[in-house]
Amino acid sequence: MSFFASRWVPAPPHAREAAGLPDGFRAAGVACGIKPDGGLDLGLLVSDAPDTTSAARFTRSGVLAAPVLLCQERCELGALRAIAANSGSANCSTGQPGLDDAARVQAAAAEVAGVPPAQVAVASTGAIAHRLPVDELVGGMAQAGTELRPDGDGDLADAIRTTDAFPKRVALEVDLPGGAVRLSAQAKGAGMISPAFATMFCFVQTDAALEPASADLLLQTTLARSFERVSVDGQLSTNDTAILMASGASGVRVAPESDDELAFGEALDAVMRQLALLVVADGEGAKRVGRVVVSGGHELHVEGAARAIANSPLVKTALHGADPNWGRLAQSIGMALPGTAPLAYDIAIEGVRVCEQGMALPYDERALGDAVAGDEVEYVVGLPGEGAETEVFFSDLSHGYVTINAEYTT
Amino acid sequence: MSFFASRWVPAPPHAREAAGLPDGFRAAGVACGIKPDGGLDLGLLVSDAPDTTSAARFTRSGVLAAPVLLCQERCELGALRAIAANSGSANCSTGQPGLDDAARVQAAAAEVAGVPPAQVAVASTGAIAHRLPVDELVGGMAQAGTELRPDGDGDLADAIRTTDAFPKRVALEVDLPGGAVRLSAQAKGAGMISPAFATMFCFVQTDAALEPASADLLLQTTLARSFERVSVDGQLSTNDTAILMASGASGVRVAPESDDELAFGEALDAVMRQLALLVVADGEGAKRVGRVVVSGGHELHVEGAARAIANSPLVKTALHGADPNWGRLAQSIGMALPGTAPLAYDIAIEGVRVCEQGMALPYDERALGDAVAGDEVEYVVGLPGEGAETEVFFSDLSHGYVTINAEYTT
Repeated sequence: MSFFASRWVPAPPHAREAAGLPDGFRAAGVACGIKPDGGLDLGLLVSDAPDTTSAARFTRSGVLAAPVLLCQERCELGALRAIAANSGSANCSTGQPGLDDAARVQAAAAEVAGVPPAQVAVASTGAIAHRLPVDELVGGMAQAGTELRPDGDGDLADAIRTTDAFPKRVALEVDLPGGAVRLSAQAKGAGMISPAFATMFCFVQTDAALEPASADLLLQTTLARSFERVSVDGQLSTNDTAILMASGASGVRVAPESDDELAFGEALDAVMRQLALLVVADGEGAKRVGRVVVSGGHELHVEGAARAIANSPLVKTALHGADPNWGRLAQSIGMALPGTAPLAYDIAIEGVRVCEQGMALPYDERALGDAVAGDEVEYVVGLPGEGAETEVFFSDLSHGYVTINAEYTT
Repeated sequence: MSFFASRWVPAPPHAREAAGLPDGFRAAGVACGIKPDGGLDLGLLVSDAPDTTSAARFTRSGVLAAPVLLCQERCELGALRAIAANSGSANCSTGQPGLDDAARVQAAAAEVAGVPPAQVAVASTGAIAHRLPVDELVGGMAQAGTELRPDGDGDLADAIRTTDAFPKRVALEVDLPGGAVRLSAQAKGAGMISPAFATMFCFVQTDAALEPASADLLLQTTLARSFERVSVDGQLSTNDTAILMASGASGVRVAPESDDELAFGEALDAVMRQLALLVVADGEGAKRVGRVVVSGGHELHVEGAARAIANSPLVKTALHGADPNWGRLAQSIGMALPGTAPLAYDIAIEGVRVCEQGMALPYDERALGDAVAGDEVEYVVGLPGEGAETEVFFSDLSHGYVTINAEYTT
């Protein structure tokens, strides 16, 4: 399948690529004039199934945008029927007026979707510190209502893009023991991507029937292995939102702790990991994706070293320059583990061992140089002890990142 | 005076710029062929006064270079008489052979200086994971011994440069109540500059007479206000070394807790802060220096927010682009203080209040745009509460940084 392009995410054998949204869902994307280029900037997703279940997760930032606060305070997060998401403005640092703006957008979407406002999630992404153009969004919402289509996921994915170079979405048909279900997802994110969980938007739909607790567990578990393990620039956003919705329209029930749940979870896991990797690959100005795997005896050491490597601008520029300069990894490891010297660490790059017990090994520089010039580069780090292991995916740091962010103006 | 160029470091009124090293010191810089361009790459500093006192601090990294380990394990750090420092190779991740190499360099310097090896500090900076060219360094050391001069501080400062665009040094005459003393210092550093304390080399000499405990206290205190408060790229090095040496040759004794110590400390503080700012200003590819001052009710919150802002590639690229996009600061603050939303934070840039209690304020965009286009930009952040305050100086993130580090090869 073309979606599962990374060597690090095998395509689930029981899934096939499909098109359009799962049964019960309709979506649309319209242009409200927020984006200066006239591009789509408001997406609307609606489930027509009254018993739709859902789960949601948000950024852990101490500075939360108004739509995140509104969702957390006023939404039935286990029974969402609709999502209204705009790009071009984050509605963050806007105080009570910003909350009122978000509530107006929510109300407009609720009217169009024919559901109570508490069942409508709102999400915004774009520049911080500007008021939403609410009148334009409310007008656009009416138009979006007339354009809702079962194959509107492409427009939805387009409408949530900011600096994304390409839209990120997938639609699958998944064979469960209990029958076939559909699974689709749309994501956005290219910069301000990191640590905590989902530093972006990720909307997932299925026509499987899930209990709210199952939806919550599945979202939590797959986020932990996908968007929680990626970093473009180590920067946690104020607006990150991930929502899973299950219409149940397929009639296939996925019971807790069943083989159906296992098979569904495997497909969802692959989808989330590949989407997260697409976000990294589309990291602002990115050319390559790195994966660092760190093992050792202490969870905190392993996690700290992996994050330090993934977020190091020195590692990222070396990755950009196709330079197997593993001294950059040694420096990051030392920074993550102060006071542990002399530390016996091992480093391998693309399967070539370059450092063992803290000491340089001879290797074929030319062959390794070629090996790190591809689209994906894997670093494996061993710390003393065993029992703990983690991974982080990260992008390189390029001139493009500097250009985009030096000119991404207020 | 020309050295104290930053508005953030007033020149001490009781000091005048001078030339050359304080009485008792001689220095030299020679070329051993480590730098491909034939530049100076070995610096030697010697004190001829038998009662010289000293103090030293090193990086807190868990991955320590061989010269750092050697200094910590084998040197009398309160009674150093000489420093041998090379650029071009860090002698890090080199295992026991690297320690043996560092010991050979130390022994060669000890012979030239006529002091025991334990009174010679060694320091290396450059690429990680390569063995030192010891034979060349030992040969160069003999040459350096013949070239030691009281005005050799310029060559010493040159010899420790790596990616530094310019050498960083100063020589002052300082009036203390008890008499006039001399104070000189040389520093290097441009990348891999951050958190812990001295992510670079900083060598300081004086002909004042200091007890070892005073030297230690003065170094500790002034480092905490200088090199511990700067960041180019948030990356702690494996080789950072700061050494203060006092020959006592002036005959002016600086007693603990005396007015002399206070006056000496003020001058040393200004020297260290300005040197640290020069390192930031010479940050790889840097065009501007930012200063963020954060106040609030909790030490950890204040420190966390200041570091998050100073190390954010989004803040740094905005600084580079002369963009007063304070949403980048709001994002950093939120990332540093997870779970505190809704957070009432204030932000001012160059004296213009742009955000109050977490909410955007109107301001003159054009005037602020002009204000952030200078060499130094000041950000002031207020968090809830009071009693804690800190500052961090940081460089912008530019195309130059990417170019330098994507091509800084093994």
